[in-house]
Amino acid sequence: MWKKPTFIVNTAKVHLNIKKMQHKAVKSQVAFRPHFKTHQTLQSAELFREKGIHKIAVSSVTMANYFATHNWNDITIAFSLNLKEVNEIDKLASEIDLNLLVESAYGADFLRKNIDSKAGIFIKIDTGYRRTGLTPVNLDEVKRIIQIIKNSETLTFKGFLAHAGHTYLATSKKEIEYIYQSGIQQLNQLKSIFLDDFPNLIVSFGDTPSSSIINDLSGVDEIRPGNFVYYDVMQLKLGSCSEDEIACAVACPVVAVHNDRNEIVIYGGAVHLSKEFIVTKNGQKNYGLVTEIQQSGWSKAIEGAYVKSISQEHGVIFIPDVFINKFKPGDMIGILPVHSCLTANLLKEDTVLIS
Amino acid sequence: MWKKPTFIVNTAKVHLNIKKMQHKAVKSQVAFRPHFKTHQTLQSAELFREKGIHKIAVSSVTMANYFATHNWNDITIAFSLNLKEVNEIDKLASEIDLNLLVESAYGADFLRKNIDSKAGIFIKIDTGYRRTGLTPVNLDEVKRIIQIIKNSETLTFKGFLAHAGHTYLATSKKEIEYIYQSGIQQLNQLKSIFLDDFPNLIVSFGDTPSSSIINDLSGVDEIRPGNFVYYDVMQLKLGSCSEDEIACAVACPVVAVHNDRNEIVIYGGAVHLSKEFIVTKNGQKNYGLVTEIQQSGWSKAIEGAYVKSISQEHGVIFIPDVFINKFKPGDMIGILPVHSCLTANLLKEDTVLIS
Repeated sequence: MWKKPTFIVNTAKVHLNIKKMQHKAVKSQVAFRPHFKTHQTLQSAELFREKGIHKIAVSSVTMANYFATHNWNDITIAFSLNLKEVNEIDKLASEIDLNLLVESAYGADFLRKNIDSKAGIFIKIDTGYRRTGLTPVNLDEVKRIIQIIKNSETLTFKGFLAHAGHTYLATSKKEIEYIYQSGIQQLNQLKSIFLDDFPNLIVSFGDTPSSSIINDLSGVDEIRPGNFVYYDVMQLKLGSCSEDEIACAVACPVVAVHNDRNEIVIYGGAVHLSKEFIVTKNGQKNYGLVTEIQQSGWSKAIEGAYVKSISQEHGVIFIPDVFINKFKPGDMIGILPVHSCLTANLLKEDTVLIS
Repeated sequence: MWKKPTFIVNTAKVHLNIKKMQHKAVKSQVAFRPHFKTHQTLQSAELFREKGIHKIAVSSVTMANYFATHNWNDITIAFSLNLKEVNEIDKLASEIDLNLLVESAYGADFLRKNIDSKAGIFIKIDTGYRRTGLTPVNLDEVKRIIQIIKNSETLTFKGFLAHAGHTYLATSKKEIEYIYQSGIQQLNQLKSIFLDDFPNLIVSFGDTPSSSIINDLSGVDEIRPGNFVYYDVMQLKLGSCSEDEIACAVACPVVAVHNDRNEIVIYGGAVHLSKEFIVTKNGQKNYGLVTEIQQSGWSKAIEGAYVKSISQEHGVIFIPDVFINKFKPGDMIGILPVHSCLTANLLKEDTVLIS
């Protein structure tokens, strides 16, 4: 068994999560281009491939190169163009079907002048998250970008892409639905303007909260959820998944038990779980839910227990009276992470798959 | 130059930080056992070695093994004993001078029964942080542990060790001084009880805030600061260092500039900087200070600019009007990290040293 903080992936749950999302995409007749930023591993990638999924999204040139090396040949780098890596992008574009994001005429022109290989271009649209992208009212800049692409021999205009990251800030499913509907309306309006010129242009959307909560995704052409492969406590709080659908946990050794203050200290801290937290209804920070490690994986979350604070290598768990005597130093405890993308990244080299 | 988020270490500043702390230790006549959890790299480790420093602290068995492989032969694992790794500990103890922490008779007895090699034992004392360790009033348990060590042929009682992590929560230098004085008083009282039996027993103390702020450290026998090697924005806020002493920055490519809302988006997010933040006087989260990248390293922090939000790979910088036109996509910006230990860990493979 495990001796130090270990990221456990339940592949049976991963299978179900992928199948469910794939089924929804098929039913909604939208292309399914899962984002691989969450798992970033070849093993989880293979679980997609064996279901016939071949198009993916990633969030860096580094990640694109990694998966391209392992025979993923249709990749969208769903991240604002990093001009510094234009040579790496050019090389990669010569090897696979590569799509890039631009959000300024400056960026589009830079690409046109600096890459020789063919690449697909999405214009990044900001539907309300206010992080990157052009707001749809900025039609002049959209037209300038499209004109630059038209004048290029290597670039092909693919369509409009948005990431509605503000669904993560929503406090109800209704709000997530609103963000989704408002987002696709903005994108489809843009699409309608340019469809005559570009009959194949598509609208790409779909973060994990909206892709999980909205039943009929037919309003878009492509979805790109990523986190759903593992889910986590944040998604549970948002209503995107059930606890049973969370497909990963971090096994952490117990190093101290403080009965007097209902606390258990684990070897498992910010360098394993990340410092991501949710705020509970009582206003407390929660860095993870607490489970028992079992032969088969992990138990249901222990009621009332949570990771209350975290430092570099330590986590401090609050645990109610009735459960505290279950644990002693040397036992393992399972933590359901708040943000599985960050935890998977931190524990890349300490990951085990169970089924 | 750099193309993606890169951790830049200014070795000239590291030299000065080490020399200053070493000088203070010599003047105070205390042993200097720097904690290597912050840098975790061989290059920074060598900067210590060349100054004659040979004793170190680390926070995991993995880290101890790593440095032992590179000829560090006197290591304290300043982390509550992980019983799961007892075999690895036993092996390592057969190779180097190894000190371990225990905080329960249960743990001490487990060690006594399960390791064959000689090891030094510190009893972990909680002087107010309330994370791990025995409170000094728990004298009975301290005595039980010492009795177990006495009965062992392999274990040697070394003394009392504490980490006053609550200095990180202090809001003034005065409070840090109070935490330090109260901590060493508790430890020295314990020491006085057992000194007759163990004339060589030592008191080991010294987090970075108190080791930086207290001028005369002669009240303890050993200090173990770690973060001071690089410092960071959190230490700057605590008053442990000047901005000029911060010896690291993360170079991040600019990917979008939003003049309309005074924001710059960088390729540089939670997987590079970590999600650690400080809260500013105005109640805002601050994930890092902002500098210009220069040939020689980085500039002074740009007044009024800070990283206001962060997601997996993106950071959003607020930047005042007068500076926003300095930057365009493809430029590099330097971020002074809030917590250099976490940032150094995340960017271990993307670190460059400059002088």
